Amino acid sequence: MRVKTAEHREFIDITGRVEELLPDGFSGAVMLYTPHTTAAVTVNEGFDPDVVTDMSNMLERLVPSDMPQLHAEGNSDAHSLSTLIGVSLLLPVCDGTLSLGRWQRIFFCEFDGPRSRKVSMTYLPGEHRDG
Amino acid sequence: MRVKTAEHREFIDITGRVEELLPDGFSGAVMLYTPHTTAAVTVNEGFDPDVVTDMSNMLERLVPSDMPQLHAEGNSDAHSLSTLIGVSLLLPVCDGTLSLGRWQRIFFCEFDGPRSRKVSMTYLPGEHRDG
Amino acid sequence: MRVKTAEHREFIDITGRVEELLPDGFSGAVMLYTPHTTAAVTVNEGFDPDVVTDMSNMLERLVPSDMPQLHAEGNSDAHSLSTLIGVSLLLPVCDGTLSLGRWQRIFFCEFDGPRSRKVSMTYLPGEHRDG
Repeated sequence: MRVKTAEHREFIDITGRVEELLPDGFSGAVMLYTPHTTAAVTVNEGFDPDVVTDMSNMLERLVPSDMPQLHAEGNSDAHSLSTLIGVSLLLPVCDGTLSLGRWQRIFFCEFDGPRSRKVSMTYLPGEHRDG
Repeated sequence: MRVKTAEHREFIDITGRVEELLPDGFSGAVMLYTPHTTAAVTVNEGFDPDVVTDMSNMLERLVPSDMPQLHAEGNSDAHSLSTLIGVSLLLPVCDGTLSLGRWQRIFFCEFDGPRSRKVSMTYLPGEHRDG
Repeated sequence: MRVKTAEHREFIDITGRVEELLPDGFSGAVMLYTPHTTAAVTVNEGFDPDVVTDMSNMLERLVPSDMPQLHAEGNSDAHSLSTLIGVSLLLPVCDGTLSLGRWQRIFFCEFDGPRSRKVSMTYLPGEHRDG
């Protein structure tokens, strides 16, 4: 999947696109993986856009865009956020549908945009059992 | 699995409950997934309770409960911690037993309690090989 | 896999060793899992060593080695970083080869070394489909 980002730091809801690509009847887990070193994937609330804005402000406070750095490209803040949030995300799938919580949405996290990004999907068959 | 939390922020050891639910003879990985946006799951030391207290204090320093925010519910700190630690955790299982390290325990992380929470388990068959 | 660390905090590129151990023709995902509570595994840029140095400095700012703590062993900073970055990492594998991005390398993260550490590998068969 291609994700076009528009801002330097940005959270883009890709839930609908992931849902569309799930094979009919598949059960187990889907791994979303982004092959970049200045981006990430996460799950969070997507209904009130203020949540993502607050999270962005919190991340800017933790890892400032202008943090002191040696790396000549000047984007070590983006590399750091990529490792803190993670490039690999595993999600449950039941009968061709994501088993997300009521308020959960999947976000692609851009930390050094705007760019054209990729997210790959790997389907791992498995079984759900509730205890 | 249901997890009842008692505090606003709390780490609850769920290792024993996960172990009990593992199917006999199963090998591969188990994904623990919590369908909430203000909680997480992690692995850490569970023998000295001071470790979890220190981690809680560190998280409060990083993402204060009273951090400035736009979100009307006032729990953006909990949303942020959920993304930093993660709602999805994959663990190795060998012949029906978790292959954790000697000091590792699994913790449910509550960041906006007290609440009644859920954790689902998905079994992904696989093979271990040591190199 | 054994990883010998030399520093108190250190990032060690283990990509080549992971690649070597992948079974011929295997497709799906490989889970790297480190059974320790003061270490982690992550993916990031490995070509300019300044990136890892900058990330180390950023982590030291977030979670100082001398952070105030109750834990008598005095390594709660390492426990905290282990939870923030994570002990479990899932990566895509296609036909016996890691499907990493052009700049991505796999790092073992030592936060309380020097020590002799372990990383286990679990192979989860699966299918890739691009959307």
